[in-house]
Amino acid sequence: MTESSALRTDRYELTMVDAAIQSGTADRECMFEAFARRLPDGRRYGVLAGTGRLLEQIRRFRFTDAELAWLRDEHVVRQPTLDWLADYRFSGNIWGYQEGEIYFPGSPLLLVDATFAEGVVLETIILSVLNYDTSVASAAARMVSVGRGRPIAEMGSRRTSEHAAVAAARAAYIAGFAATSNLEAGRTWGVPTMGTAAHSFTLLHDTEEEAFQAQIDAVGPDTTLLVDTYDIARGIERAVRVAGTELGSIRIDSGDLPTVVAAARAQLDDLGAVNTKITVTSDLDEYAIAALAAVPVDAYGVGTSVVTGSGSPAAGMVYKLVAHKDDAGAWVPVAKTSASKESVGGRKDAVRGIDAGGIARREIVVVGQGPAATDDGDEPGADAEIAGERQLLVPLVTGGEIDERYLGAEGTRRAREHHATAMAELPVQAFRLGRGDPVIPTVYR
Amino acid sequence: MTESSALRTDRYELTMVDAAIQSGTADRECMFEAFARRLPDGRRYGVLAGTGRLLEQIRRFRFTDAELAWLRDEHVVRQPTLDWLADYRFSGNIWGYQEGEIYFPGSPLLLVDATFAEGVVLETIILSVLNYDTSVASAAARMVSVGRGRPIAEMGSRRTSEHAAVAAARAAYIAGFAATSNLEAGRTWGVPTMGTAAHSFTLLHDTEEEAFQAQIDAVGPDTTLLVDTYDIARGIERAVRVAGTELGSIRIDSGDLPTVVAAARAQLDDLGAVNTKITVTSDLDEYAIAALAAVPVDAYGVGTSVVTGSGSPAAGMVYKLVAHKDDAGAWVPVAKTSASKESVGGRKDAVRGIDAGGIARREIVVVGQGPAATDDGDEPGADAEIAGERQLLVPLVTGGEIDERYLGAEGTRRAREHHATAMAELPVQAFRLGRGDPVIPTVYR
Repeated sequence: MTESSALRTDRYELTMVDAAIQSGTADRECMFEAFARRLPDGRRYGVLAGTGRLLEQIRRFRFTDAELAWLRDEHVVRQPTLDWLADYRFSGNIWGYQEGEIYFPGSPLLLVDATFAEGVVLETIILSVLNYDTSVASAAARMVSVGRGRPIAEMGSRRTSEHAAVAAARAAYIAGFAATSNLEAGRTWGVPTMGTAAHSFTLLHDTEEEAFQAQIDAVGPDTTLLVDTYDIARGIERAVRVAGTELGSIRIDSGDLPTVVAAARAQLDDLGAVNTKITVTSDLDEYAIAALAAVPVDAYGVGTSVVTGSGSPAAGMVYKLVAHKDDAGAWVPVAKTSASKESVGGRKDAVRGIDAGGIARREIVVVGQGPAATDDGDEPGADAEIAGERQLLVPLVTGGEIDERYLGAEGTRRAREHHATAMAELPVQAFRLGRGDPVIPTVYR
Repeated sequence: MTESSALRTDRYELTMVDAAIQSGTADRECMFEAFARRLPDGRRYGVLAGTGRLLEQIRRFRFTDAELAWLRDEHVVRQPTLDWLADYRFSGNIWGYQEGEIYFPGSPLLLVDATFAEGVVLETIILSVLNYDTSVASAAARMVSVGRGRPIAEMGSRRTSEHAAVAAARAAYIAGFAATSNLEAGRTWGVPTMGTAAHSFTLLHDTEEEAFQAQIDAVGPDTTLLVDTYDIARGIERAVRVAGTELGSIRIDSGDLPTVVAAARAQLDDLGAVNTKITVTSDLDEYAIAALAAVPVDAYGVGTSVVTGSGSPAAGMVYKLVAHKDDAGAWVPVAKTSASKESVGGRKDAVRGIDAGGIARREIVVVGQGPAATDDGDEPGADAEIAGERQLLVPLVTGGEIDERYLGAEGTRRAREHHATAMAELPVQAFRLGRGDPVIPTVYR
């Protein structure tokens, strides 16, 4: 299954290559940069996700006969460009923040060093993958941080498109979710999968008891019974009668949760099902989860809000040419000067300034040197608050060779671990849900 | 390329099949219904999209050896269920609102008549496709209606995940957009594609003139030059100098658009480029487009807002069991009674009540008879305002056979035409942008 990803691309990427081949500029060495000018409204940090998926997409970015024939028939580009596309393999270098990393406005999240033509054709696929996955991970991290260690499962596959669902499950897992309902995310990315039952299963049976019995017969009492199809109190009574006090969990998907959950806990305890857990799943988001902190919930299931970025369904990342080499081989910084959409030209490096207590204090963007040129642990210079610096850019693709450690289930697990480490550095103010400024400033050096 | 869609599914769909096979209820004939309890906040109508894509996904919903091996290894379901999945082909009936149709709260948008097991395994894929595509089409239709006939291009591929981008381009086209930047949408669904150039192309060249010249050399003067990389007035002057007064169009992507566009129009006219069009593309949504009604814009490009449903990125559709047959073969209506999530049980039909002037006045949901049982043009009975009724449900799948007319580019074109017809029936109040109630009431009969 090596479906080409090459036409998941804006037409202008190819017509720009066409024009650049015509004008002789296609082979100029360029540095492109993906970054976000700002965080979503009122957020204090963002979480980069999608890198592992992106690297797979870049690997599949091939113009096969089928793509070339369509481009020819549609007169999208001319023959020299078709020939160039036929041979297309990305042969440049890519550096990026590690997947799962925290970011701030202006963080140089991905740096692509390639000819203009090689770099520009990847623009759409880079932004599609990173914008969506990052929006999900950024929302998910906030839910995890207010979840106080209670496991959260991603259940939103039905609230985003069918492929995005798989990406969302992966991004939420990277940001600390415990599991997903999406089977393809399990198969492709190694995310643990889980599931309960739907109301339709109860309604299919002539009585609620029969439905519960069928589920217990199939998977044993250590399952989750959905108890709110008719009446929650009667549902719980029937659930424990059928499953016994060994019942693993009940799920509640409706009602005023603080009240309903407290009553359910008391009822379960009265019935002797003191170890039966309570999972809630009704239109939860980070605010609803925070409001349930003092309620005896054991696990959350989150759908719509996480897969749609909880109000910010696209991370707002852009991909800009920041430098190209002149004929003498020297890098020339470039930037547009359009009103309210300024960029900082030039090749970047980035480090996180850490204080003596191990807490992040600055996002430091180093302009003018190449990526990953700043030593880890550089002396902080004049900034007395900063005791050390952590290098943020890692090589992802070198001379066209993808670093395999970032791919597949291994890459996903690695990203999840990196995320947990990076989150531990954030100042506590980062975890306030209310609107605010980025928790650390971005400074240019 | 017949990639299986079968694991883009919530785990519980399969474990419910497993339990139902165990309990002997898997083969009960059921009617499932997809509907939305409400429209997105303040919207006056919704636009159904995704049907053609969904039918392709159902065709590809096959458990091949690869899927079965993974499910076995993960112990998701037991052997009898694996055997059943291996043979899975949807063999039931599906009716639906035609793609592109307008809908209201409670409209029975998709009806699936099949055994419990056959119907329940499609739940996730049905909702994933319909919720996303419908959210895009519903937003797009509002933009088209305030666009006063000016063409709108969908350019949001980079603001949604890479497969969703293709679906979004298709859904926006169904809702009346003129074109998309997404090449795969052109290839797969026959959506017209278009493109201009990015700021990076200008920045690549040593001067703006050289960039413009390269683009003109490649595609001729009937192209769109992006004039706001440095200074818009100078950009326009250079564009006309290089391309001549035959220049097709300029694109402006920044600045205070009413002011900037008026100045650009005056400048183009002064330069003699009276036929050169102006395309604007800066973070537009339906409100921004409405605000530009009196400004001499010729075409719009819309990105983020359309592909993310303009604030409502998931349509909120649910898929519920509404009836099953009892052992005697009679249909038994079922519905859960959970707080604030009630459903109306029973098999539905639906017609739109039209007044003597051809304007829609009621969404009439007929409960208790099967789908498409109500005659087109039924006598309206006691409702004096209604002069006629239009049947809303069409057969999409009959005994497992998909109606081919709804697939591919033909189905997409058909949906676009149907949408235009259905929109023409709406009362004028539907086109107000401000928040309000559904423009016609849903009544149950």
